[in-house]
Amino acid sequence: MTPVKKGILERLNTGEVVIGDGGFVFALEKRGYVKAGPWTPEASVTHPEAVRQLHREFLRAGSNVMQTFTFYASDDKLENRGNDLRLTGQQINEAACDLAREVASEGDALVAGGVSQTPSYLSCKSEDEVKAVFKKQMDVFVKKNVDFLIAEYFEHVEEAEWAVHVLKMSGKPVATSLCIGPDGDLNGVSPGDCAVRLVKAGARIVGVNCHFDPMTCVKTVKLMKEGVERAGLKAHYMVQPLAYHTPDCNRQGFIDLPEFPFALEPRVVTRWDVQKYAREAYNAGIRYIGGCCGFEPYHIRAVAEELAPERGFLPAASEKHGMWGSGLDMHTKPWVRARARRDYWEKLKPASGRPLCPSISTPDSWGVTKGHADLMQQKEATSEEQLKQLFKKAEAND
Amino acid sequence: MTPVKKGILERLNTGEVVIGDGGFVFALEKRGYVKAGPWTPEASVTHPEAVRQLHREFLRAGSNVMQTFTFYASDDKLENRGNDLRLTGQQINEAACDLAREVASEGDALVAGGVSQTPSYLSCKSEDEVKAVFKKQMDVFVKKNVDFLIAEYFEHVEEAEWAVHVLKMSGKPVATSLCIGPDGDLNGVSPGDCAVRLVKAGARIVGVNCHFDPMTCVKTVKLMKEGVERAGLKAHYMVQPLAYHTPDCNRQGFIDLPEFPFALEPRVVTRWDVQKYAREAYNAGIRYIGGCCGFEPYHIRAVAEELAPERGFLPAASEKHGMWGSGLDMHTKPWVRARARRDYWEKLKPASGRPLCPSISTPDSWGVTKGHADLMQQKEATSEEQLKQLFKKAEAND
Amino acid sequence: MTPVKKGILERLNTGEVVIGDGGFVFALEKRGYVKAGPWTPEASVTHPEAVRQLHREFLRAGSNVMQTFTFYASDDKLENRGNDLRLTGQQINEAACDLAREVASEGDALVAGGVSQTPSYLSCKSEDEVKAVFKKQMDVFVKKNVDFLIAEYFEHVEEAEWAVHVLKMSGKPVATSLCIGPDGDLNGVSPGDCAVRLVKAGARIVGVNCHFDPMTCVKTVKLMKEGVERAGLKAHYMVQPLAYHTPDCNRQGFIDLPEFPFALEPRVVTRWDVQKYAREAYNAGIRYIGGCCGFEPYHIRAVAEELAPERGFLPAASEKHGMWGSGLDMHTKPWVRARARRDYWEKLKPASGRPLCPSISTPDSWGVTKGHADLMQQKEATSEEQLKQLFKKAEAND
Amino acid sequence: MTPVKKGILERLNTGEVVIGDGGFVFALEKRGYVKAGPWTPEASVTHPEAVRQLHREFLRAGSNVMQTFTFYASDDKLENRGNDLRLTGQQINEAACDLAREVASEGDALVAGGVSQTPSYLSCKSEDEVKAVFKKQMDVFVKKNVDFLIAEYFEHVEEAEWAVHVLKMSGKPVATSLCIGPDGDLNGVSPGDCAVRLVKAGARIVGVNCHFDPMTCVKTVKLMKEGVERAGLKAHYMVQPLAYHTPDCNRQGFIDLPEFPFALEPRVVTRWDVQKYAREAYNAGIRYIGGCCGFEPYHIRAVAEELAPERGFLPAASEKHGMWGSGLDMHTKPWVRARARRDYWEKLKPASGRPLCPSISTPDSWGVTKGHADLMQQKEATSEEQLKQLFKKAEAND
Repeated sequence: MTPVKKGILERLNTGEVVIGDGGFVFALEKRGYVKAGPWTPEASVTHPEAVRQLHREFLRAGSNVMQTFTFYASDDKLENRGNDLRLTGQQINEAACDLAREVASEGDALVAGGVSQTPSYLSCKSEDEVKAVFKKQMDVFVKKNVDFLIAEYFEHVEEAEWAVHVLKMSGKPVATSLCIGPDGDLNGVSPGDCAVRLVKAGARIVGVNCHFDPMTCVKTVKLMKEGVERAGLKAHYMVQPLAYHTPDCNRQGFIDLPEFPFALEPRVVTRWDVQKYAREAYNAGIRYIGGCCGFEPYHIRAVAEELAPERGFLPAASEKHGMWGSGLDMHTKPWVRARARRDYWEKLKPASGRPLCPSISTPDSWGVTKGHADLMQQKEATSEEQLKQLFKKAEAND
Repeated sequence: MTPVKKGILERLNTGEVVIGDGGFVFALEKRGYVKAGPWTPEASVTHPEAVRQLHREFLRAGSNVMQTFTFYASDDKLENRGNDLRLTGQQINEAACDLAREVASEGDALVAGGVSQTPSYLSCKSEDEVKAVFKKQMDVFVKKNVDFLIAEYFEHVEEAEWAVHVLKMSGKPVATSLCIGPDGDLNGVSPGDCAVRLVKAGARIVGVNCHFDPMTCVKTVKLMKEGVERAGLKAHYMVQPLAYHTPDCNRQGFIDLPEFPFALEPRVVTRWDVQKYAREAYNAGIRYIGGCCGFEPYHIRAVAEELAPERGFLPAASEKHGMWGSGLDMHTKPWVRARARRDYWEKLKPASGRPLCPSISTPDSWGVTKGHADLMQQKEATSEEQLKQLFKKAEAND
Repeated sequence: MTPVKKGILERLNTGEVVIGDGGFVFALEKRGYVKAGPWTPEASVTHPEAVRQLHREFLRAGSNVMQTFTFYASDDKLENRGNDLRLTGQQINEAACDLAREVASEGDALVAGGVSQTPSYLSCKSEDEVKAVFKKQMDVFVKKNVDFLIAEYFEHVEEAEWAVHVLKMSGKPVATSLCIGPDGDLNGVSPGDCAVRLVKAGARIVGVNCHFDPMTCVKTVKLMKEGVERAGLKAHYMVQPLAYHTPDCNRQGFIDLPEFPFALEPRVVTRWDVQKYAREAYNAGIRYIGGCCGFEPYHIRAVAEELAPERGFLPAASEKHGMWGSGLDMHTKPWVRARARRDYWEKLKPASGRPLCPSISTPDSWGVTKGHADLMQQKEATSEEQLKQLFKKAEAND
Repeated sequence: MTPVKKGILERLNTGEVVIGDGGFVFALEKRGYVKAGPWTPEASVTHPEAVRQLHREFLRAGSNVMQTFTFYASDDKLENRGNDLRLTGQQINEAACDLAREVASEGDALVAGGVSQTPSYLSCKSEDEVKAVFKKQMDVFVKKNVDFLIAEYFEHVEEAEWAVHVLKMSGKPVATSLCIGPDGDLNGVSPGDCAVRLVKAGARIVGVNCHFDPMTCVKTVKLMKEGVERAGLKAHYMVQPLAYHTPDCNRQGFIDLPEFPFALEPRVVTRWDVQKYAREAYNAGIRYIGGCCGFEPYHIRAVAEELAPERGFLPAASEKHGMWGSGLDMHTKPWVRARARRDYWEKLKPASGRPLCPSISTPDSWGVTKGHADLMQQKEATSEEQLKQLFKKAEAND
């Protein structure tokens, strides 16, 4: 019934902004359908109504992509993460494709089949074995005829390259996101070099997702873009960051923060933070802009609202959102009415209501993994400068 | 099909813990179905799937009560808050009852019809006029045969009394919650006196909801309980607080915080904060324990998990939650595995990742409403003591 | 040579503002002449130039009182605190009187002989024994003909009464300060009752010093004043607070803060905080206004500058201080010049440059002295409300 | 009378640690003898007892160098900064030399004559004119026979070179400190290149002073050392940082912090911070270790205590200081006694007692000097990453 939709590359080639979706595993963990720790997506089979509803909320918020809820849905992961329902990877991947397609059909969204890093790679299985894992998921995506493919959440560019090699055999456009920061992948390959390798491997869209806060992710993608351009290559760029402030992360990202994953609340970005991020990403030349863990539908709506001038329209969910707080303009208290303006929300520095808590943590990885008394001592360093120096040292010793 | 359920008073009379639900307007605002400012619940009619899904998540998290999504659904409110769909209050209230009943039937939950404070009272309409507003909503609840009634979110005990007068005509048990803190209602009636008046008016369950953080609300209900007992009366007690830390609130609650309602993120309580709250509430003799704005399904699950020893079972959603972080016990990084224990999460002081933000705000109401230069000057006071003194002064001048 | 000076009571009786001095033991600890822990004042004998210089700085800053540097200079204290130089109490007290008189003669200042709480009282010696200790110091003060006497830093009003009984035998005016907060002395005697007892014992000036921040101390003296007036008595009032922010102190004051005494730096009040304090104290009817631990000469100057309109003159040290930052008005950078105004400094919320540090601590006394697991657990409570509740509980158990 | 002391180069050549002194202008501002804004040192003439006493305190704390109190004592500065006493530069410089020599003779300290950056350079006077200003001060130092010379607090390496050219004509050893951070001087010359130029100009000791916190300064001197070694040159290294935490400074240092100079209190480093700094400086191969603005005698003592193992002795003032809090070991409260240990103080994260204040500021220079709306907007950025990015941008636009 729906007219044929423009494909992902058609959109990006004509300069359109493509809005991604937000973070499924974290949102569904809070809603009661995903277990933190394993983070596996059995809910596509067991509670389709919950997954469908989340897709719909993102669609309504402005997402142009329904990513299949197949994170960590490779067979090797499902096995070692205690998939006690004995669902096969194929069942989960198929159900996820159906849900994504069902909701995508309700609006102007494409379906993207997604793969992510595997335990097989981390446990040093061979290239062939790792590729076989990706192939199994891809076969489902091809059968279900998704619109394009995303290989995301890779800490090592090498594994991402292997994934791209496999996915491009589908003939569908391939996008790839690493979960790295400005310091590069866990082997120290710089963002620029990572991007060049991924483009050479066949990815048409490259970028980062997860692990770092919005501004850090934009900065990383900029480095990727510079690398690609320096190499005389061409690509589109994507960014799907955390919705958490992570200035205190080291190279391994938010996993190492002491608050991960059950006390991240005070770090959640506001819708206004997201608007700044969306603008910054757009200005950096990134055109595929979404979110990862922590991004709720209202965060995605903020991307769509910030870029409404460029896109020419507001998302459906904006019928329930006054831009820049304008919904407060009829409040009975004058000082609440006074908040119905852009200037107020842009400048506000929100308090945490937690006077016993610091503003920044030290990542757990430091002290625990090094075991050197001097580092433990240094871990207590109180100045930012020390903080930065220590990160450098700690990483140098990794 | 389902066996006849025990009523709310039967449960409380036998000492059972009754778990309430969380906050619909804030959760659905983030999901894209409620507009901040008006906060009205047209979504029961326009997007039933979204309301149904949220009910289900709370049920799954352990809620024993499905409260009809009828906050601010009185005709006078719907009119002055821009119900541009021209839905009648009756349509909205009926749809909300049906959704609550549908999901309640899927588990061991009761349906509670809810009314809240009215613009009619605030604009000084007569007692008869205000009561007529409540009566209209009650008629729907009777027709739809809800299990009991809740009058909640009242800043003035007088209006709550009027609501109780009306609701008890239904013959159903009536519960009442004020949105007050330890300093009492906006006319300065103390929590103890408020509670006595409500019990005398006919409420069987009294307590507070919204406006303050969990521990402050428990403290307020304790004061209510002391008042009731001192007066030689009997009642059950309920508490449904914010999921935001609000140590810096004055008598009018979180509305006056500069972050309300679009930058409250750093104040969100963790699941561990909620466990402490649930224990504190239980120890205070409160047996109806739930949440209000900001309470997401995982917060309600935390109530159910904390009180699992007393209740004898875990909620359905705990199949997706390792108690005290135990889901992390197979993580590949040893320092993340080390977080799979109660001690870790109980003691953690979470960082905000926001070094430019203070820990506490000054409520907007101070400076704006007083207009006295000296108060403006004092507003900048930096010590806690000054803070407390100023609250006192500001309130004395109200 | 100098004209006969007006005595302390003449000044206060005519409504004059009397400015006290600041904190000797903390200032001289930082300068290298007093040892933290014992805190005894041998330096009056061993390094008179250092003590004389500090007196001069306070005089120059506006102090009208040179308090003899005889804190903890009772024989019993000197003995048990390791006075390894074998100086007698008499030697120290005499040298201190001479230094105070020498500098007082250089300006319009009186000399006050000071005694403070004794180990004899704390170890439950008899009233006679305790009084004998005070008598020994008083005999020196009489011999050296100081202008009036101060009994200060008492945690128990009973011991202060005994001190007053002794000191008034000198025939000189007696002032008394307790180191208590709004909750009263360590036996729970309220500030009002303490003050009444001290006035009845013969003190002409009553108030508080040390242990709490400026605004808390003013609040406590207000409570004292209310008590005295309610009892139909008359007195003058004095306040000499810490120069540290202590919103997180319990009844025992800053001793129990984890930062005491070697990491209090981030709590130091600014000169602008002091101006607010001086105004607040003046408005409360307090006319003897000074400082205790942490108060440096520039803090005392801020008292004198704030009250210059009332006193009719600026202190000598103001020749080296532009009011409200006006000394910056010729700075080369325009944004630094922009700070040369009252409004800027009054409103500034100073950052600590310590993103790893919280804004508030929990006093050590809680967990350590109780030994109850549940309290230890509660010690980790994160909300302010919990904080306040816990203080109450902890103190109730004392 | 005193035996001939070893000169500065003899000491450094044999690997001795030389401890500098602390900050005179800030310490004397608080004591009432220097005016913030002009910061000129007339007190050497008008209040010699105050200057002498501060010298003595540093000597007692362990300083091996009595730097003449001649900061900003060049004729051009004295004129334009309102030297209303009409003292000549010569009078001030001579008096300062006499005071430094008098106190140096009381212990094992050398006298260093000091010059600093001039208004003549900043207002683009010719090289000859600027050099004439330095020459006038140097002539006094030669006449008074100081032991060596220090040219310090230069924001432009070029002016420092000119100063070195002049000072080395005296035949005395010349040390030079720039007030720069890791990003180099205000013209963008890197620390390494600055150091090379200064060594080539004739400085035997190079380093930094003022403007940044201790760890940042050590980092900067490390970069200098690397530059000098890369160039195949040789030098000794000195570091004399602020005693304020300044993680939020941009290239121009603490001048641009909103708290400068009257609300820096919460940033003051503790003695324990200083011990870490002293160790870090020593480990970096720096052997001339002191302090600048904010460094009080107890901070210098902390340098001497940390490096006591290397130096073989404690400073005189340590007779009044128990190492690592050991003076608390006889306290009556067990939880205070429990603080008499290294571990406690090394790990403590001190609270500010200021819940309304953030941990980090944004330097004033950003918004005010740029005037670009987008930068003003960005100034409100809340993440650290944004903070860092913005600094880069702001500086790129300078």
